[in-house]
Amino acid sequence: MAKPWQDIARTKQQARLAAIPPHWILDGSIKPGPSVQDVQDFPRASGFFTTEELSITEATASEVVANIAHRKWTAVEVIKAVSKRAAVAQQLVNCLTEIYFEQALKRAEELDAYQVREDRTVGPLHGLPISFKDQFNLKGVDSTIGYISYVGKPATEDSTLVTLLVKAGAIPYVKTNVPATLMMGETVNNLFGRTVNPRNRKLTSGGSSGGESALVSFCGSYIGVGTDIGGSIRDPCNFTGLFGLRPSQGRVSYQHVVNTYVGQDAVKSAAGPMCRSPADIRLFMSTLAAQKPWLHDPACLPIPWRTEEEKVPTELCFGIAVGDGYVNSSPPLRRAIAITRSKLEAAGHKVIDFVPHEGVEALDIVQKMWSADGGAEFQRDTDASGEPLHPHLESWAGHSANVKPQTVEEMWANQQRRNVLARKWLDHWQGTVAETGNGRPIDGLIMPSTPFPAIRHDVRYSWHYGHLAPLLDLTTGVFPVTKVDVEKDQIPDDWQPLSDKDRELMEYYEKPENHVNSPVGLALYGRRLEEEKVTAMLQVIHEVVGVDY
Amino acid sequence: MAKPWQDIARTKQQARLAAIPPHWILDGSIKPGPSVQDVQDFPRASGFFTTEELSITEATASEVVANIAHRKWTAVEVIKAVSKRAAVAQQLVNCLTEIYFEQALKRAEELDAYQVREDRTVGPLHGLPISFKDQFNLKGVDSTIGYISYVGKPATEDSTLVTLLVKAGAIPYVKTNVPATLMMGETVNNLFGRTVNPRNRKLTSGGSSGGESALVSFCGSYIGVGTDIGGSIRDPCNFTGLFGLRPSQGRVSYQHVVNTYVGQDAVKSAAGPMCRSPADIRLFMSTLAAQKPWLHDPACLPIPWRTEEEKVPTELCFGIAVGDGYVNSSPPLRRAIAITRSKLEAAGHKVIDFVPHEGVEALDIVQKMWSADGGAEFQRDTDASGEPLHPHLESWAGHSANVKPQTVEEMWANQQRRNVLARKWLDHWQGTVAETGNGRPIDGLIMPSTPFPAIRHDVRYSWHYGHLAPLLDLTTGVFPVTKVDVEKDQIPDDWQPLSDKDRELMEYYEKPENHVNSPVGLALYGRRLEEEKVTAMLQVIHEVVGVDY
Repeated sequence: MAKPWQDIARTKQQARLAAIPPHWILDGSIKPGPSVQDVQDFPRASGFFTTEELSITEATASEVVANIAHRKWTAVEVIKAVSKRAAVAQQLVNCLTEIYFEQALKRAEELDAYQVREDRTVGPLHGLPISFKDQFNLKGVDSTIGYISYVGKPATEDSTLVTLLVKAGAIPYVKTNVPATLMMGETVNNLFGRTVNPRNRKLTSGGSSGGESALVSFCGSYIGVGTDIGGSIRDPCNFTGLFGLRPSQGRVSYQHVVNTYVGQDAVKSAAGPMCRSPADIRLFMSTLAAQKPWLHDPACLPIPWRTEEEKVPTELCFGIAVGDGYVNSSPPLRRAIAITRSKLEAAGHKVIDFVPHEGVEALDIVQKMWSADGGAEFQRDTDASGEPLHPHLESWAGHSANVKPQTVEEMWANQQRRNVLARKWLDHWQGTVAETGNGRPIDGLIMPSTPFPAIRHDVRYSWHYGHLAPLLDLTTGVFPVTKVDVEKDQIPDDWQPLSDKDRELMEYYEKPENHVNSPVGLALYGRRLEEEKVTAMLQVIHEVVGVDY
Repeated sequence: MAKPWQDIARTKQQARLAAIPPHWILDGSIKPGPSVQDVQDFPRASGFFTTEELSITEATASEVVANIAHRKWTAVEVIKAVSKRAAVAQQLVNCLTEIYFEQALKRAEELDAYQVREDRTVGPLHGLPISFKDQFNLKGVDSTIGYISYVGKPATEDSTLVTLLVKAGAIPYVKTNVPATLMMGETVNNLFGRTVNPRNRKLTSGGSSGGESALVSFCGSYIGVGTDIGGSIRDPCNFTGLFGLRPSQGRVSYQHVVNTYVGQDAVKSAAGPMCRSPADIRLFMSTLAAQKPWLHDPACLPIPWRTEEEKVPTELCFGIAVGDGYVNSSPPLRRAIAITRSKLEAAGHKVIDFVPHEGVEALDIVQKMWSADGGAEFQRDTDASGEPLHPHLESWAGHSANVKPQTVEEMWANQQRRNVLARKWLDHWQGTVAETGNGRPIDGLIMPSTPFPAIRHDVRYSWHYGHLAPLLDLTTGVFPVTKVDVEKDQIPDDWQPLSDKDRELMEYYEKPENHVNSPVGLALYGRRLEEEKVTAMLQVIHEVVGVDY
């Protein structure tokens, strides 16, 4: 008889705990109790880390590889420090799934030896620890995407992306938590439990790449590899104060990666970096492109990292929006938009209003694509172990939802709607040439990824702005701006809803006290396949806007 | 009450005939009778054309634009000559659907005036007549794709590709015939009738771009724009002795084009040029890329014409195959392979055996994609007028075939098979690095597009090699080599079938007498998005192999 799913989860969690060296386990004397909400400063405040460890772990990826290349730090020093911080992150925010510190340390030793012997590095990521969302395969390690039924089926080969990054010198050392099915805006599952936000453990770190966002923002990783089919890189980054990139299809390999909706093509997930500086996005993307991924993955496009596309105009012109014309954002997001607008204008850039009405139809189209099979895949993979689907998922894709699978004709018609919407969007974008005053259309669009900052656990929100980019395959970056301010982010007395849905969402938000300490970030949309330009613009925005906390 | 479909067809054909000026109508004294099979030489032999008209129409597109730019010919002279030859082609091989010589002449006059006034051309295609398969929209003109029910619904805007080509100086003047549904290897429908091969009117000019192949090979057009989802550019080119290119997705705009399987994405049709020289492929492709189609069509990739990719190695290494390891080719194709191999080797290139076994699975996958809707679209669009589906189509997609539509889960599983096959193919290709002896994998693969030369009308063949390229989105060019030789192309006495299917196909071929005068060409496969390299290699092959008739 099959084991109860609860036993499988318990065993898996015990194995995870056992992978943390005993001297990195926080005992009761130091470990913050459940009532402590903000654990972000634990590493500095607790005295559990040396100054050197803090210095190493709080560097950016670009600084780490430079310091290793210049022999300021060794790969072993770096992997030890970041492994320790990841282990502590796990104990405070429950962000990891698989831990393989020993293999990582061995690899770091090899890299150090190589550098001494050959007097050079193996590649641009020499010695850089990189964490992976628990979809990416490492030979011999499970990739469960949060399903109990996926436990005990270790990968037989590495994901192509892992292979390419390792070849460039990166060191995998942990994988990170996701919601089962990957299709939620929070990170919780029956196998590994719930990941929480280090700045307020009552809040989510987002989803589905919420293990990564919690880990990277806690400085337990430099670059986390996430994936995004509807906001799963962007929302977690915004909820935790990170930079991130959802690239267009074909720039970052997604081959041999465990995924939901296997074989579904109509709207596709993209893998991309989550990190603490725009320079780290560039490091990740340019290093990958230099590996010619198209020779290893037929879904990758033969496009090198085009440095000429990084030369952005000195005076940029951005479109800007607080919402999609149907639902506007809650006060913290509006404030982030206002800050960004005024700082960009003060720095000599132009900002024009641009309402992405197309997002409303995008959401409808994408929701049909996500439920085309009537939830059969989710049901199959939870039924296999007997675990329940999370109630949010059950309500739209579970047996009880009884969603009718689509016919081929319905699917084709929905895909054609997408094609028509893509043209409408392009025309809308191109049409801004009449307003920018510089002969070009807008260089990018700045708007929230979600109308909310990080939300409380299990408080479902049913509207966000994340569908347009994957549906139309637009390069989209995210950047941090501010954090929730209990005084400034009250709902104004004169607020008027734009629609019933707008009213409903403000009721969810309710008050800033519900979102204390939540970082607030925004998204920057480019065109399709503008990874170079979007990354360069993120750098410009970061220099101009900064982070006010 | 709706008109009988036969009346609609009759009226449409009368209007088509009426669009030909009376002095270009061939009367009984000169028009070859139905018993005359080969009409290819009619323009030269009949005296119906002036020497100047012959010279203009038999030039390549590259020569035409050069001669107009250098004022040797005017755009008006060119459009008049080629319109006349197209009109004659129509009367001999029934290749046209829509004729708009008057608008074309007017445009030519404007272009000539512009050139005189401005002392320059409007673009690289200044004055070049271009014909379009009857899927492409021209404002005010029907695009029927051979369906009776599509008659009388003129397009409200031009296809994006038409707009871009016209902007570069091209002149649309005719559209060309297709099989209704576009999904046949012959060109016949109830609306416009059957298009035949100018070199042997008992044979097909191929399909579905068979109007184009007949017209271009008759020198009634320089560049015809075809489309290809399973061989529809490649087979017609090979059957009529043309060069052609089926580009990867994203290089040639397919926006605002009437198509079958609307919204279907799993295997996609690509538009590309059909012409009489590799230089004309380059002219077409490089001109289009220079127009930045990605600013007009969201499905186009932001990839310019990469001249550095045209610099191919002096010593190339080709894979070569006579079939897919399951079905080999009939004698004329084997002879074309032998000619090509020996000439390439004599010129210092290397040729290695490479059996594309993956084609067998590709065919199975693609056939499922093509019948996913159980034929609903074909049935709907023929039922709308009451016309019957062609028997070949009826047998696999008509009401009587009673094909069960696929479920979403079946479609996703089939799409995932494609993803796995794509990786297998890439590994197979990359693996040739062990054999080439130059440190690179093969530069291209040379093999037949079909196991047959042009076949007799309504003789169905059920196996060919055309599915792999669209399924995996591989850039594929075609080139002519020879023509059927009644002595050399008999089935050898010692021939042994590779499989039952192989035997069946040789029974279809039967003997070269069934294919008299058919051109015989081959395909050149590149990787995905290698349009520059494949075009350059077609030029190399053309210079080395030539055409032996």
